[in-house]
Amino acid sequence: MKTTGGTDDQKRRAGERAAELVGDGDVVGLGTGSTAAYAIREIGRRVDAGLDVRGVPTSFDSRALAREAGIPLRSLADVDGVDLAIDGADQVDDDLQVIKGGGAAHAREKVIAAAAAKFVVVADPSKPVTTLQRPVPVEVLPDAYAAVERDVDELGGTATLRRGEGKDGPVVTDNGNLVLDCDFGPIDDPEALARVLSPIPGVVEHGLFVDLAETVYVGTDDGVTVRRRD
Amino acid sequence: MKTTGGTDDQKRRAGERAAELVGDGDVVGLGTGSTAAYAIREIGRRVDAGLDVRGVPTSFDSRALAREAGIPLRSLADVDGVDLAIDGADQVDDDLQVIKGGGAAHAREKVIAAAAAKFVVVADPSKPVTTLQRPVPVEVLPDAYAAVERDVDELGGTATLRRGEGKDGPVVTDNGNLVLDCDFGPIDDPEALARVLSPIPGVVEHGLFVDLAETVYVGTDDGVTVRRRD
Repeated sequence: MKTTGGTDDQKRRAGERAAELVGDGDVVGLGTGSTAAYAIREIGRRVDAGLDVRGVPTSFDSRALAREAGIPLRSLADVDGVDLAIDGADQVDDDLQVIKGGGAAHAREKVIAAAAAKFVVVADPSKPVTTLQRPVPVEVLPDAYAAVERDVDELGGTATLRRGEGKDGPVVTDNGNLVLDCDFGPIDDPEALARVLSPIPGVVEHGLFVDLAETVYVGTDDGVTVRRRD
Repeated sequence: MKTTGGTDDQKRRAGERAAELVGDGDVVGLGTGSTAAYAIREIGRRVDAGLDVRGVPTSFDSRALAREAGIPLRSLADVDGVDLAIDGADQVDDDLQVIKGGGAAHAREKVIAAAAAKFVVVADPSKPVTTLQRPVPVEVLPDAYAAVERDVDELGGTATLRRGEGKDGPVVTDNGNLVLDCDFGPIDDPEALARVLSPIPGVVEHGLFVDLAETVYVGTDDGVTVRRRD
């Protein structure tokens, strides 16, 4: 359920603009995906120019990219807090509620977004919507996927076990779990849906990021539009 | 945080009594721990005598014991539902709310308890209490443990990373995660605590089993006392 849409230039503008928010001495959460990658590369260039930061990667890929970019890395357990987290989104609505998890990294991404004093979303113009309506990625314990499928069905959704490429069978997350893409149609009340998904036994983390994003940078063909939480 | 207390005879009476509930053709969830083990062994004896059941184990240990006892096993994904789950408890209060997780198997145990049409708890007399007050075991993603510790602290609790024997460092669950034992003192409202623990990013599953137990069998020195949900 990777998202597509948006040009490289649009993504680059959003990512680089967010990277400007990083201050000297900051601990920065480093997101996953093609738009966040532009932020990571720009932070790397600023480190080359003398910026003092430590990065906390959200995934295998963001760790590898940050190493390549020369950003000193820490694990979340080794820092007292995170000043700023920058990450992409699969969809973001008018209230700055977000669906993530197209890259199956949303569990660690949410841990780091929630730990951050400020969570900034970077996106291309294909991501903002009036009402969230993508399937919600739900990471589940491997043993529990069929039970969670039934629970999602009872909530009025349709769960599809995510399959990928490079291996037979389902996608396995960096945490060793599976992903159910759970289609609820248009999501008028993300907070209410999040409230019923979290306690389902076997659910490790769902992809709804409710009341976490403070700012959204959307890269356009000639600049960046900024949306802030009221 | 393994519980102690209760005699083998008390545990045996509770476990064997619960095993009598299993009917021909049932799919049975098989719990973890010393009291559930007596139920598994008794179900095994009934299988020897001709009972037709399939067992769904909740852990590595319950799988091994059930195989030894000759119970045909299925994974949760391979059955349409579970008729009855039998499991132990670390504490159970007057409203049949339960704390589990002393054996760090509570995530799979909860998936199976919730999937079961009927969830029966077996216990010795040291387990019933008026108010739950043990630390709540919380299974967390390894990367997230320090962030969850901070969240538990903000909720007024104290989280301790569980350490075990047989390996240096923390206990690692059958799911590859860590366990924080989270002390909130007496828990007057288990449902309210469960509601704030579930959505914490990085929390895989907490050990509060709210509104799941239908019946509790407590083995005593000369019989079994039964408590049922109103």
